Amino acid sequence: MSDPADHNRVWTLARRPSGTPTDDCFAFESRPLPEPGSGEALVRTLFLSVDPYMRGRMRAGESYAEPWDVGAPLEGGVVGEVVTSNGTPFDRGDLVVGNLRWADYATAPAHALTPVDVGDLPASTALGVLGMPGRTAYFGTREVAEPRPGDTVVVSAAAGAVGSVVGQLASMAGARVVGTAGSERKLEWLHEIGFDAAVNYRAADDYDAALAEAAPNGVDVYFDNVGGPLTDAVFDRLNVDARVAVCGQIALYNAEERPVGPRKLGSLIASRARVEGFLVSDFAPRFEAATADLRRWVEAGEIDYRETVTDGLENAPDAFRGLFEGENVGKQVVRVADDYS
Amino acid sequence: MSDPADHNRVWTLARRPSGTPTDDCFAFESRPLPEPGSGEALVRTLFLSVDPYMRGRMRAGESYAEPWDVGAPLEGGVVGEVVTSNGTPFDRGDLVVGNLRWADYATAPAHALTPVDVGDLPASTALGVLGMPGRTAYFGTREVAEPRPGDTVVVSAAAGAVGSVVGQLASMAGARVVGTAGSERKLEWLHEIGFDAAVNYRAADDYDAALAEAAPNGVDVYFDNVGGPLTDAVFDRLNVDARVAVCGQIALYNAEERPVGPRKLGSLIASRARVEGFLVSDFAPRFEAATADLRRWVEAGEIDYRETVTDGLENAPDAFRGLFEGENVGKQVVRVADDYS
Repeated sequence: MSDPADHNRVWTLARRPSGTPTDDCFAFESRPLPEPGSGEALVRTLFLSVDPYMRGRMRAGESYAEPWDVGAPLEGGVVGEVVTSNGTPFDRGDLVVGNLRWADYATAPAHALTPVDVGDLPASTALGVLGMPGRTAYFGTREVAEPRPGDTVVVSAAAGAVGSVVGQLASMAGARVVGTAGSERKLEWLHEIGFDAAVNYRAADDYDAALAEAAPNGVDVYFDNVGGPLTDAVFDRLNVDARVAVCGQIALYNAEERPVGPRKLGSLIASRARVEGFLVSDFAPRFEAATADLRRWVEAGEIDYRETVTDGLENAPDAFRGLFEGENVGKQVVRVADDYS
Repeated sequence: MSDPADHNRVWTLARRPSGTPTDDCFAFESRPLPEPGSGEALVRTLFLSVDPYMRGRMRAGESYAEPWDVGAPLEGGVVGEVVTSNGTPFDRGDLVVGNLRWADYATAPAHALTPVDVGDLPASTALGVLGMPGRTAYFGTREVAEPRPGDTVVVSAAAGAVGSVVGQLASMAGARVVGTAGSERKLEWLHEIGFDAAVNYRAADDYDAALAEAAPNGVDVYFDNVGGPLTDAVFDRLNVDARVAVCGQIALYNAEERPVGPRKLGSLIASRARVEGFLVSDFAPRFEAATADLRRWVEAGEIDYRETVTDGLENAPDAFRGLFEGENVGKQVVRVADDYS
């Protein structure tokens, strides 16, 4: 491990975006290397996670996550290595994850860092299949969506970091799994990893017809990462006692006007469906067990994963915006340490 | 009990309504008195129930209840007395309920009739607080909405047959109960029967402000009979782990275009709220126990009820349309047998 650089590059929020975040919403600053205080560690960023929920943090006070201040550093999931431990239980070189700055280096108190053991898997998996997205899929599927053998399960953004794991967990539970995604390349991967049917929502003129073909027996479980018209079409096909897990609504996150759509609550009466939102953080006491299960399944080849790696901290805003264009297959990460693979 | 008349008045569906059902949607026919076949009873209608869900049956195949055919008799909950038993377990004079025609008399097989024991209460209660609306409130509150001590519970159409019972059951469960209704007269009654706060949605310019005042600590349970903008405002105030029971959407039933409104699914993520539709018929095996509980609570004065009685079968369509104008306080029934109170 090389000595730390003598400066630190940090992304800050230059102004709140209106619609899709433009370049002038982000500022790339050069700052001195931070000094860890007592009980803190200095961490070198290996990979940075960009996630759709971050769009909410760019807004003033409208999301479940704390809004970022204008002028303050952006933050996100980071997997990094400890450079200096100033009275923490970590040693130099230890692999940790934490919610840290979009920066080359960051300091953090010991309680904000979690040691990581990815075995023979790449460190970046600690931000993806073995990290927050994997655990979101794990708890959302098992505790909220609850697929049963023979169920038809529909997953939106199925080729994403969360959706791809949801679909595979649902398959393992004996369900018939239908994914929606935005490109033929993604659809191919969905078929490779065991999805029974897949809908290219960009190619479909008529969501109702496409869903009727992909889910001819109706929908027992819907795991929603997207929202909007695709979700409307699924609501029209819910079977009796269907369950809908609301994980994300990426189709709406860049909207500046409050999005409107057909009123669908009435469709829950005939179907007696249950629609439930959830946050993975509520399951924190069980994260360790979830990660162990996921790692075991990945190592055994039962769960496949992909990552889209963008090189260079300087490209983090582009990687983030790419999420809303559907450019990533699997987990989107930014490789910050160029000597690390 | 007098001898049956020699003719029978019957309401039929003359044509499917567009929007609010107009007079020409209904036809009032005079027919011969029906003859009960073997295993059937002839029942004289005492009271007829009109209910919002019937609007769905006037449409071709869009509701959870079977659509009525044009030209066929309208049907609804009836409490009546057995006139002739042709091989049924009932005796002449027995009080029964069933889903029968909007008519002076109807025949029905034994399995379609349920004996009624209302004790000292009026027979009409078998269509209201001791009937389908009471049971809808009972199961919807206890099995879906699940109010807990200290919860804030909001009930829409709170002065209706279902809502008034929901509110009182929630009070019994130790919750703080807020009702919405459309007139000061209804609000007065809500206060009389123990609602802690009430909102006149017709007088409120701003639902958000009215709800913020009536439910300052947010909403833990929402029992929705109404839908539309009022429901939007409640969704913005859902607390963490809130439960929403979707019972009806009366605000939307007369709409001919698909109603649109703000997309609210995203609000379920931060609140981790659960939204669930239900049909009382799913609880049929437990109806007897529910009715016994309700009767006990009414007799003990723990549950109050009101009925709005429209006199004369000829006025049944008006009574039905009045539901959508919010004219009824408590259960709306039609007194068909003019010698019966």
